[in-house]
Amino acid sequence: MDEGTPDALRMLLTRTVVRQFTDRPVGDELVELMLEAMVAAPSASNRQAWAFVAVRDPRTLRLVTAFSPGVIDRPPLLVAACFDRSRTARRRPGPWDEGLLCVAMAVQNLLLAAHALGLGACPVASFRAGPVRRLLGLPAHIDPVLLVPVGHPARLPTRAPRRDQKEVISHDFWGRHDRA
Amino acid sequence: MDEGTPDALRMLLTRTVVRQFTDRPVGDELVELMLEAMVAAPSASNRQAWAFVAVRDPRTLRLVTAFSPGVIDRPPLLVAACFDRSRTARRRPGPWDEGLLCVAMAVQNLLLAAHALGLGACPVASFRAGPVRRLLGLPAHIDPVLLVPVGHPARLPTRAPRRDQKEVISHDFWGRHDRA
Repeated sequence: MDEGTPDALRMLLTRTVVRQFTDRPVGDELVELMLEAMVAAPSASNRQAWAFVAVRDPRTLRLVTAFSPGVIDRPPLLVAACFDRSRTARRRPGPWDEGLLCVAMAVQNLLLAAHALGLGACPVASFRAGPVRRLLGLPAHIDPVLLVPVGHPARLPTRAPRRDQKEVISHDFWGRHDRA
Repeated sequence: MDEGTPDALRMLLTRTVVRQFTDRPVGDELVELMLEAMVAAPSASNRQAWAFVAVRDPRTLRLVTAFSPGVIDRPPLLVAACFDRSRTARRRPGPWDEGLLCVAMAVQNLLLAAHALGLGACPVASFRAGPVRRLLGLPAHIDPVLLVPVGHPARLPTRAPRRDQKEVISHDFWGRHDRA
C-alpha cells in the first residue's frame, strides 16, 4: 500500500475489528448509509435470503448484550444479521447454503461502510441464539447468523497479525507459490 | 448516494456482478493487491481457516471452467476460495462454522478490491467440487467454497434490483420499520 493506492482499496486494507465504543450515538443518516451498503452485497440468484434488525433501543441493547459473550462492550448500535430460510435457493441438503455466505458478505459490507464513515464494528458469532431470537421477535424461519456491534471507536484499533501469504495463497495449483 | 459520499462508500454501493471478460490479462501487481485485500477480511478467533488458489494457467482455467456451470465466460484469473477444516474453531457440530463465514467475507473483499481497481468479478457456487479439487490438487481438509472469476469487464454491468428495504430491515424488533 503506497500513496497511489486508491482510497477504496486502502479502506479494505485498514479495516480492523473494533470492540469498544464511546457513548456517542450513531445518527440516522449514518445508519441509513451503512444499511444501504450492506444490502448492496452479492446475493445468490438474487434471492436476498437475508434479514437484518438494527437495534438502537437501550433496553434491547442491554438485554441482547447480556446474552452475547462475544459483545464485550455496550454499543450504541447493534445489527443482527440473519439468514431467511424461507428464501433459500438450495434444492438438496448440503454442508452450507449459498444464502448464508451472502449474509456474511453483507456483514462485510456493513463493517467496511462503518470503517469508511469513521465508525468501528466487529462480527460476533458468540451469542445465545434462543434469547436473541426472543428479544428481537425473530420468526422460526429467520436464523440469526452474526451480531454486529457498531459505534465510535473508544481506542485506536490495532490489526491482528496474519499468516504468511505463502501458507494461505497458492498459484495455479495447491502448494505452488510462484507462477510457472 | 450524492457528491459528498466518500469514495470508499461509493465503491460498496456501485459494485455489481461481472460475468463476462475481455481477453486482457490481469497483471501481477493487480493480483497481489487483490489478494492482500482479500486476506485483510475478518477472521474468527484469528484462525484464518481459509486457503486460496489463484489460477491464471490457461489449461487449468479451461478445465475448471468446464466443470463450473456458474462460470459462464473464460476469465483471465479465477480465485478458488476454500475453507480449511483443519483450522476450525468449532468444538461441536453446528449448522455452519464461523470460519466458513470468514471465507465469504474474504471473497467480498476480493470482489470489492477488483471493483476498486477497475476490474470485475463474481462469486460462483455452481461448480463440481470433485473435479475442481482434483484439478487444483486440494487436500482432503480443504473444501472449495466459492470460485471467483476476475477480469476486465466485457460490458457495462447493471445492478440487480433489490427487495424493498422495509421487507429486509427492521428497527429494534422484527417487523418494526420506524424507530420508536
